[in-house]
Amino acid sequence: MSLKLYYAPGACSFVPHALLELAGAPFEAVLVKLHKGEQRSPEYLALNPRGQVPVLVDGDAVITQIVAIVLHLDQRLPEAGLLPPAGLARTRVIETLAWMNNTVHPTFTHVFMPQKFTDQPEAQAAIKAHATAQYRQLLGEIEAMVAKKTAPWLTGANPGVLDAYALTFLRWGGFAGIDPTGYPHTWALAQAFAAVPAVARAVEREKLQLNVYKPA
Amino acid sequence: MSLKLYYAPGACSFVPHALLELAGAPFEAVLVKLHKGEQRSPEYLALNPRGQVPVLVDGDAVITQIVAIVLHLDQRLPEAGLLPPAGLARTRVIETLAWMNNTVHPTFTHVFMPQKFTDQPEAQAAIKAHATAQYRQLLGEIEAMVAKKTAPWLTGANPGVLDAYALTFLRWGGFAGIDPTGYPHTWALAQAFAAVPAVARAVEREKLQLNVYKPA
Ligand SMILES: N[C@@H](CCC(=O)N[C@@H](CS)C(=O)NCC(=O)O)C(=O)O
Ligand SMILES: N[C@@H](CCC(=O)N[C@@H](CS)C(=O)NCC(=O)O)C(=O)O
Repeated sequence: MSLKLYYAPGACSFVPHALLELAGAPFEAVLVKLHKGEQRSPEYLALNPRGQVPVLVDGDAVITQIVAIVLHLDQRLPEAGLLPPAGLARTRVIETLAWMNNTVHPTFTHVFMPQKFTDQPEAQAAIKAHATAQYRQLLGEIEAMVAKKTAPWLTGANPGVLDAYALTFLRWGGFAGIDPTGYPHTWALAQAFAAVPAVARAVEREKLQLNVYKPA
Repeated sequence: MSLKLYYAPGACSFVPHALLELAGAPFEAVLVKLHKGEQRSPEYLALNPRGQVPVLVDGDAVITQIVAIVLHLDQRLPEAGLLPPAGLARTRVIETLAWMNNTVHPTFTHVFMPQKFTDQPEAQAAIKAHATAQYRQLLGEIEAMVAKKTAPWLTGANPGVLDAYALTFLRWGGFAGIDPTGYPHTWALAQAFAAVPAVARAVEREKLQLNVYKPA
């Protein structure tokens, strides 16, 4: 059965993209140019009416939502060990994944696309400023998690979903004027994760520059 | 091993609350009075530094995040059949759960607590108005899902997590001036779900009135 991932360079779709490479399963990577609005083309909306990446196509099934895609890949490719197989270790990874997905990720959306929350320019500026401050705090929470982890990776013994999401968030911060090197543990983790040979293939395909921060 | 749920009446903690009753496992329900700010007491912050419900305590483990709590209960109480055990049916439930948790739930937070997104009163009003319109659309998406479901419940053959979340969202809408009977399929589902004897115990403990809408 074929696997196909719709992704955009540097978007949250990097999370399943890195996992597919880590799993070593053959898959097709389909580029969606968000800056050209391809996610709102009739063809793409027929695939995902919400007009977002990532989308995983597994045979006939079209699957959206990072959390669902990750858990689907874990059940589809059990030998890859993408998540701890059971017990509290598994719950802990899912807990942090859910928090990243429902809190950190939406906070960055307020920074990057405040126009999604109001049409009024002044209110947009207020939202952006407030969310940027919050985002720094959330990166601080991630930094504390990385600093006190006892396993080699945030996900555990193997590099995985939480490391991929942490890299993505730290990289996004650069676009919001947040210096990634200000979070030294997360910055080291992101660099190490990007250097894992399987992950490096996803980084290369997306042509990702890890540090996009430009001092003012 | 003991299970304990920290919940607030009518909050999103209704989702794990209903599931615990449906699973028929013995558990202790601990009331947290959000309107009195109990979630910001030193005792509660020691339990959950993010100051939110729900929190599930399983033996020594303190677990937050609805998505993680639900998947934890499913693995802890496999005989309860809280989620489809495997395959695409499982992925579909998790996909909708993740979307409810990362999109519908945060949209209502913008309606109910716009002060979380900016300190400026005018910007708060703009956020609230925009989010209320969006929330109506999201309830419309849920209504379409309920209308076209082929199983008895949104979760599948058995009442479960998606039904509990849908009930919660429709009820919340009432506080935002949205008439739940305007979404007839979801309204019927919410009433049927609340009447399931196990669920009725959670509804009774939370003293929930299903329809809180007051015509202007
Ligand atoms: N809830 C979705 C969020 C996906 C999402 O935020 N995708 C963004 C990229 S990071 C997107 O496609 N944005 C395009 C747009 O909004 O036009 C998930 O968890 O997968
Ligand atoms: N991301 C959390 C969200 C939990 C949440 O939003 N809890 C709300 C009630 S619905 C809360 O405790 N609010 C109290 C407050 O913000 O002070 C989850 O998925 O469990």
